[in-house]
Amino acid sequence: MSLLGKKALDVAANLGRRRFLNSAAALGAVTVGLAACKENTQGSAASAPAAAPAPAASPKTAPKTEITAAPETRGFVGGAGSTEIHPGQLDTHYGVWSGGHTGDARILGIPSGRELHRIPGCCPDPMVGWGWTNESKAVMGTKPDGTLEFTTGDTHHIHCSYKDGIYDGKYAWVNDKLNARLVRIRMDYMVTDKILKLPHVQGFHGIFPDKRDPVDPNINYTTRVFCGQEFHVPLEKIDAKTVNDDANYGCVFTCVDAEKMEVKWQARIDGNCDLVATSFDGKLAGTNQYNTENGVTYPDMMSAEVDACLIFNVARIEQAIKDGKFTHLGNNKIPVVDCRLDANKDPKTALAVRVPVPKNPHGVNATPDGKYFVCSGKLSPTCTVIELQKVLDWFDGNLDDIAKAVVAEVEVGLGPLHTTFDGRGNAYTTLFLDSQVCKWNIDKAIKKYAGDKSVNPIIDKIDVMYQPGHINATHAETIEADGVWMGVGNKFSKDRFLPIGPLHPENDQLLDITGERMVLVHDTPVRGEPHDFVIFKREWLNPKQVYDMDDFPLAVHSAEEAGVTRNGNKVTVRIVAFAPAYEPNVFNVKVGDEVTIILTNIDRVEDLTHGFGLPDYNIQFLVNPQETKSVTFKADKPGVFWYYCTNFCHALHLEMRGRMIVEP
Amino acid sequence: MSLLGKKALDVAANLGRRRFLNSAAALGAVTVGLAACKENTQGSAASAPAAAPAPAASPKTAPKTEITAAPETRGFVGGAGSTEIHPGQLDTHYGVWSGGHTGDARILGIPSGRELHRIPGCCPDPMVGWGWTNESKAVMGTKPDGTLEFTTGDTHHIHCSYKDGIYDGKYAWVNDKLNARLVRIRMDYMVTDKILKLPHVQGFHGIFPDKRDPVDPNINYTTRVFCGQEFHVPLEKIDAKTVNDDANYGCVFTCVDAEKMEVKWQARIDGNCDLVATSFDGKLAGTNQYNTENGVTYPDMMSAEVDACLIFNVARIEQAIKDGKFTHLGNNKIPVVDCRLDANKDPKTALAVRVPVPKNPHGVNATPDGKYFVCSGKLSPTCTVIELQKVLDWFDGNLDDIAKAVVAEVEVGLGPLHTTFDGRGNAYTTLFLDSQVCKWNIDKAIKKYAGDKSVNPIIDKIDVMYQPGHINATHAETIEADGVWMGVGNKFSKDRFLPIGPLHPENDQLLDITGERMVLVHDTPVRGEPHDFVIFKREWLNPKQVYDMDDFPLAVHSAEEAGVTRNGNKVTVRIVAFAPAYEPNVFNVKVGDEVTIILTNIDRVEDLTHGFGLPDYNIQFLVNPQETKSVTFKADKPGVFWYYCTNFCHALHLEMRGRMIVEP
Repeated sequence: MSLLGKKALDVAANLGRRRFLNSAAALGAVTVGLAACKENTQGSAASAPAAAPAPAASPKTAPKTEITAAPETRGFVGGAGSTEIHPGQLDTHYGVWSGGHTGDARILGIPSGRELHRIPGCCPDPMVGWGWTNESKAVMGTKPDGTLEFTTGDTHHIHCSYKDGIYDGKYAWVNDKLNARLVRIRMDYMVTDKILKLPHVQGFHGIFPDKRDPVDPNINYTTRVFCGQEFHVPLEKIDAKTVNDDANYGCVFTCVDAEKMEVKWQARIDGNCDLVATSFDGKLAGTNQYNTENGVTYPDMMSAEVDACLIFNVARIEQAIKDGKFTHLGNNKIPVVDCRLDANKDPKTALAVRVPVPKNPHGVNATPDGKYFVCSGKLSPTCTVIELQKVLDWFDGNLDDIAKAVVAEVEVGLGPLHTTFDGRGNAYTTLFLDSQVCKWNIDKAIKKYAGDKSVNPIIDKIDVMYQPGHINATHAETIEADGVWMGVGNKFSKDRFLPIGPLHPENDQLLDITGERMVLVHDTPVRGEPHDFVIFKREWLNPKQVYDMDDFPLAVHSAEEAGVTRNGNKVTVRIVAFAPAYEPNVFNVKVGDEVTIILTNIDRVEDLTHGFGLPDYNIQFLVNPQETKSVTFKADKPGVFWYYCTNFCHALHLEMRGRMIVEP
Repeated sequence: MSLLGKKALDVAANLGRRRFLNSAAALGAVTVGLAACKENTQGSAASAPAAAPAPAASPKTAPKTEITAAPETRGFVGGAGSTEIHPGQLDTHYGVWSGGHTGDARILGIPSGRELHRIPGCCPDPMVGWGWTNESKAVMGTKPDGTLEFTTGDTHHIHCSYKDGIYDGKYAWVNDKLNARLVRIRMDYMVTDKILKLPHVQGFHGIFPDKRDPVDPNINYTTRVFCGQEFHVPLEKIDAKTVNDDANYGCVFTCVDAEKMEVKWQARIDGNCDLVATSFDGKLAGTNQYNTENGVTYPDMMSAEVDACLIFNVARIEQAIKDGKFTHLGNNKIPVVDCRLDANKDPKTALAVRVPVPKNPHGVNATPDGKYFVCSGKLSPTCTVIELQKVLDWFDGNLDDIAKAVVAEVEVGLGPLHTTFDGRGNAYTTLFLDSQVCKWNIDKAIKKYAGDKSVNPIIDKIDVMYQPGHINATHAETIEADGVWMGVGNKFSKDRFLPIGPLHPENDQLLDITGERMVLVHDTPVRGEPHDFVIFKREWLNPKQVYDMDDFPLAVHSAEEAGVTRNGNKVTVRIVAFAPAYEPNVFNVKVGDEVTIILTNIDRVEDLTHGFGLPDYNIQFLVNPQETKSVTFKADKPGVFWYYCTNFCHALHLEMRGRMIVEP
């Protein structure tokens, strides 16, 4: 009863279907018909065989290279290439990481790779009470019965808000592919403050904030977040016919208001969106698209030899909406424009343009000089460089063929997925199949593509372990890319860490890119699958360490305001926590009561967090200094239930407790 | 309406109530009436003030010391005291960590401190699908409606199974304080395989496995896990009278069958259990007890000057049960014996004995030579050393006063919480209030207590950052304690890491203890609050990297076995995953159907894990190589739902997907 396309099955059968990594390499080679570039390769260009032991430690594959940055720029103690942060020293950079199928975001210290924080968003977090407190439920969204609408998620791409071309430390956004949610994190307290479920979208993949407004020069900061969709689905009526009529499934590209966290507009598109990039001038947003064939089976998705980087003219779209040139999907009020190929053939009126790139591309990244989008080939061993001024020229009617916006197509190796930059004109592309990173020069790639055969854009290659995906150098996606550290997110770790059972960690590797050649300096195991990340200097963030009690309307300001009030069977218990006690430390309710506990931590000392655990009632949360949280539940079990402080706070922390007495 | 005891409020008021760390130090000093020992102190004996900046890096407070272990024992490259593990190198030790209020367990590499794995147990884990799959729900426990009974937890103490006095790599256990559950992890696959909710218990705190049978010499391995209770509650009838009658609340100590994960017996006790320790000969289990006063308010809990290490005679208790000398609590069949003070005054028949220790002790740890339990004083600046042979002598009628089992009471500093050992006769005790670790010699402490005033047992002190709790040296709780590395779990990190908002990480510090003086070598930030941990050499574990398909009764062995079957409105969908495809990749159901998806990963390659995400149906889980999992849900929404691989598996991973078509 095979429903899998015959062609794919044949391919799989021919490859033995088990020899994954070898077969992946083989499939890449067969599909693409090209061998990896071999120039300037430090290590072996071949992928590590699936079952073979790891190659020896990197010092052999990555000889020490001269570190050109001044020591103070490096900001760490130790020899060149050392990432050791000695006790009492601080990391020099923040890493902002997506959490993958854990549904959270993570803050790392770089270069040490140490995880400093996990920020829950899509999924409940028992430690802080995310998903238990009334405040977090309001952010996450609930069903009519008050339970959470979703408790699982799959965060992929994370990016921060911009001002004047660098991160302003205000927000980070990360997408939940699983349930099509956009999560916003406020970076002052490093907590999730808004979650938006995108309508009509399934398989929400790439995101990117804009960097300034396309029209108003005074808006030099992020006001939009662009969101791509992967999966084709029926976009309007759902009935027995439409769900089975795959020829009429569709996709949308969504623009979200960054501040309000509401959808501004959506655009009908062809194809499946992979990643999203935005130009530094605010005028263009692009998404790499595979499956422009609009296929629903594996062979159909790969039938065309050319896919696209679809580039949107933001100002034109928003002017069209102002002019009333939009429709709706379903019952909501969101304006929808048409950015499909057929509706956008005239450059003078086109809202979007399809720049041709080889089939099934993956990432798209904007160079820090603002000039180019670089599309990674995935099934093509190339990166395609698109000059953004030429795209604007096309929209202005000054370029006859959009294909001419492609100014380079550089052969980098097998399975190029993502590209980052060092601010010195070089690009670094992950090669999934080769398990390498390729460093190449953008200007030289353009010269070579223009016909200068004497130029070799490839500067260096280095083995990484293994199968790299995302890559990002220090503030590479800002105008201040400095080319000091580079993180590489490897999808497989295999034998790089002590064995921990069948589920392996992934391997986030750190490379020193200050020299001509890359140097591998650190392996960090990570719980899968933190797709994407950005790294930037610590001076760009200034988080607050203690809350402002006035930000919490329910705050219980002192022991005098604490106590129990009853309204029918609704009981409100106001509690203050101060090390090492709660006030009150005992209260009585009756079975059947609806109990709301409001808890304020009135301690002011930094790091003096208290917890509240209520046994057998499945309730637990933390309150940080000056913070207030609340929970509501039904007292459905009689007995004595000791609430206790779950977060070590004092020498008498164990004694910090109180009783909820539930009378039958 | 203050319900807090007046005495405590007065104390708090006098202390200003805000200046936590200072007040904690002051409270300790006031209560105990003793100053910290100042001998041999490397750094300042005073706790770091709450608001002051951190002291300079440890090199100043911990001068370099001669490393006496041979380099090959150290197993890492770098200078003395370096923890840097270069790319391609492996850590030398496993760290098995409790996860705290995240409800999981964690595997770390030591000395790098890198987190290799998180093992969900008490709480759902969206990444692996723990709490979503039918298999994990069966382990976690469900309510009659099929939803999970508990979704939050608070894991505290983690210990591994023993054979011949060392870890055998079979199991680890960790307790959930919040919902009184004992979680067992099988260490071959590093997954939770059993969870037991302890009856009658609230505030389940310390645990420890036994190390051999007290009677049968052939049973030289763990067969019991001992579990302490903190919170006094009504143990039998729950009615309006008993819940308010705090004078008649009680506690039990529980013995669990390590293999069956069933309660073997329970013992009525006085007081609140903190930690648990077991003797290497299997004969004794001990628990440090505070609140032997059985108070329910803060001042009452601290009224007595003396509390206890309660030590159980395991063989006697089990013989008593064989002899039918037990009762029951409530309706279950668990035999319950009486280990309260009044019932155990005659040494010849006593089932347990109360060894007096200063008020409100905290941890209790067994020395690796098998001779002693060391109780840490918490509110007393002392550690109490109990000679286990003398306790056995008391049970045998050969010691007239159990107080004589105390062979030392060494002054270590303010706020001693936990103690570990180096196998060379030295103990290391965390001082919560002093923010230090004190190294002291056990034999010298005994000599001094016996009257030799010329002896000074204190060898070294070192500042740690800040407020340390648990402490463990490499395989310190086995007969092969080797005194190489020592971990210290600090409850506060304050300024040791880049700021990440109000919620600070904790700080697990690593110290080199091979020399006479301790050397602080690494700060690892950790998400709170990983209470306890053990560290042991990597050779003691041998996890399996690929599952055996035969272990899964529902396994779908090949694409030929895949497909859809229907029985009324119950639909079973058998799917195989193999990179980069599912088979089948489309199936239809109708709204209202109960759908069970059974998914087998038929790839055999190590590290080739697939995922399964089902949008808008809130379903996500992983399948490792050769693993099978299942989920059951109601198809309650019509539409097209693309299931997709959530775990990057192949260059065409993004294309690995299929459709569940739900017809209206």
